[in-house]
Amino acid sequence: MKEFNLIKQFFTEQVTNRKDVILSIGDDCALIAPTERQHIAITTDTLISGVHFPVDTPARAIGHKAIAVNLSDLAAIGAEPAWISLALTLPKFDHLWLSEFCAGLFELCEYYNIQLIGGDTTQGPLSITVTAQGLVPLNKSILRSGAKSGDWLFVTGELGDAALALQDIQGKVVIDADYKEQVHNKLNYPKPRVLAGQSLREYASSAIDLSDGLISDLGHICKASGVGANIILDALPLSKVLRDTIGIDKAIELALSGGDDYELLFTVSEDKKVGMETALANAGIPVRRIGQINASEKITTTMDSKVVSINVQGFEHFSNSNEK
Amino acid sequence: MKEFNLIKQFFTEQVTNRKDVILSIGDDCALIAPTERQHIAITTDTLISGVHFPVDTPARAIGHKAIAVNLSDLAAIGAEPAWISLALTLPKFDHLWLSEFCAGLFELCEYYNIQLIGGDTTQGPLSITVTAQGLVPLNKSILRSGAKSGDWLFVTGELGDAALALQDIQGKVVIDADYKEQVHNKLNYPKPRVLAGQSLREYASSAIDLSDGLISDLGHICKASGVGANIILDALPLSKVLRDTIGIDKAIELALSGGDDYELLFTVSEDKKVGMETALANAGIPVRRIGQINASEKITTTMDSKVVSINVQGFEHFSNSNEK
Repeated sequence: MKEFNLIKQFFTEQVTNRKDVILSIGDDCALIAPTERQHIAITTDTLISGVHFPVDTPARAIGHKAIAVNLSDLAAIGAEPAWISLALTLPKFDHLWLSEFCAGLFELCEYYNIQLIGGDTTQGPLSITVTAQGLVPLNKSILRSGAKSGDWLFVTGELGDAALALQDIQGKVVIDADYKEQVHNKLNYPKPRVLAGQSLREYASSAIDLSDGLISDLGHICKASGVGANIILDALPLSKVLRDTIGIDKAIELALSGGDDYELLFTVSEDKKVGMETALANAGIPVRRIGQINASEKITTTMDSKVVSINVQGFEHFSNSNEK
Repeated sequence: MKEFNLIKQFFTEQVTNRKDVILSIGDDCALIAPTERQHIAITTDTLISGVHFPVDTPARAIGHKAIAVNLSDLAAIGAEPAWISLALTLPKFDHLWLSEFCAGLFELCEYYNIQLIGGDTTQGPLSITVTAQGLVPLNKSILRSGAKSGDWLFVTGELGDAALALQDIQGKVVIDADYKEQVHNKLNYPKPRVLAGQSLREYASSAIDLSDGLISDLGHICKASGVGANIILDALPLSKVLRDTIGIDKAIELALSGGDDYELLFTVSEDKKVGMETALANAGIPVRRIGQINASEKITTTMDSKVVSINVQGFEHFSNSNEK
């Protein structure tokens, strides 16, 4: 398919030109020059049409999301994003689609000074695999395994709106027209918490990004750290539109089990709590304390200070999963 | 799909445990510790079932090939392979298939001391994207752009056997039963020229690995270097089975245009020629001088010292492609 050779042109029009990239797209490999004072963080995420995004998702949103979900992983470990490789499988050559896809992709790359250094373009059912790499000062990365009993549990932003957008697409809810775009943007154009992740290097004892849902992802922290946690359901950060659309009970359920939030869930010890809150407030990043780590190796939930049992898919996922 | 969580177990059973891997599979990112004395080479290749390998290819061969094609790119730039990320999309959970796939994948990883540091597993039509990274001493990488007029053109191994295997699968040829497995192994289990690539750092002025066919890939060197080349058709390294099966004329055509050889094509100046030949002979790597670089910016072919015109798809590919 000759047109596929033209695709490469779309990816050579980027603005970013990093000094540590010795050789970019166009040879057998890219070459980068690392420094010894930093570790390199590496993550890979695949998005498949109809699985990770609805089939009629705008191309611009797909380009944005393919980068955003990977930057979210870099953020969770406290890394500063630097380079990406893109493996793009397309059913056909579509000039407009590619232009929009690249616009979404490069917008995030330019904002964060990330350079696309290579990849592969193949023909087949639409799927996008991005490998993103970032830099983190030696021994400053935030692992899942560092949570200690007594640490406070925090989350950035608000939870559940992306899952609400998905329910809207599935015809399960009706969102007020004034809020519809705002809610769908949470699903289509997630904002990775890159700055928050870097700010948390000095404060957080553990962190993960919320892609599978709060209960599920908190489970990964608990398992890796050998601890348990209690979530204060009254404290969950829920948007007004989420509460107004499905009511408080369903809103809490969606905040616990819905995926695609791409907020950061992290733990902070008592002595670093005020420092963290000050640092993130100065950076304009909203955070909410939603619970506490304990030694139980279980996840519990309370409301009005009373233990309540919840029934969300996230629990099932947690009990059966090994790793993210 | 709960079973998909089990897949991760297959990928945590690797033997390789590199000292420069600070954090491997299981967190939001992997972490590696680079050194300032080396550049990092990065390459990404996607294999799609029915496009890059026949749908009935053994799982072990698919696992081998997904790694081998990426190692071949690292070899072409002179890098020593170190870390890989794997994005695997599977139609269903199949224990036997996964065991065989991993056996093929880890066999190469163990041989070359490569550590699988992360990736993603998703459900969908079978495709495999590997991002491979390697190390190359500062300013010792071999680029496509370094060929000079007068340099000799060399190739490792023999050409065309993988394309012959593909023709056998398509029912276009009949291969002698005694040689059938040997020929199909060239297609299914390509041997990346990792050692050759590292040996050539001191000698080659340019290099590329042969994935699209000799004419096409030589075109990439010529375009990147702003030069032309003449290929001596009499000198092409053709296996006995290739010549016996389809005759010398067709064998030459397949050597020029067939893909999937994963041999190295490289250029060496006159003053480094003997040194290169000695080094590669000592390493037991077969090489053949098949032509010479010139200033014409065209690719020509000669036989019995006379110019002959050839008609292979590779030429068309060359004239229309921008980059590999």
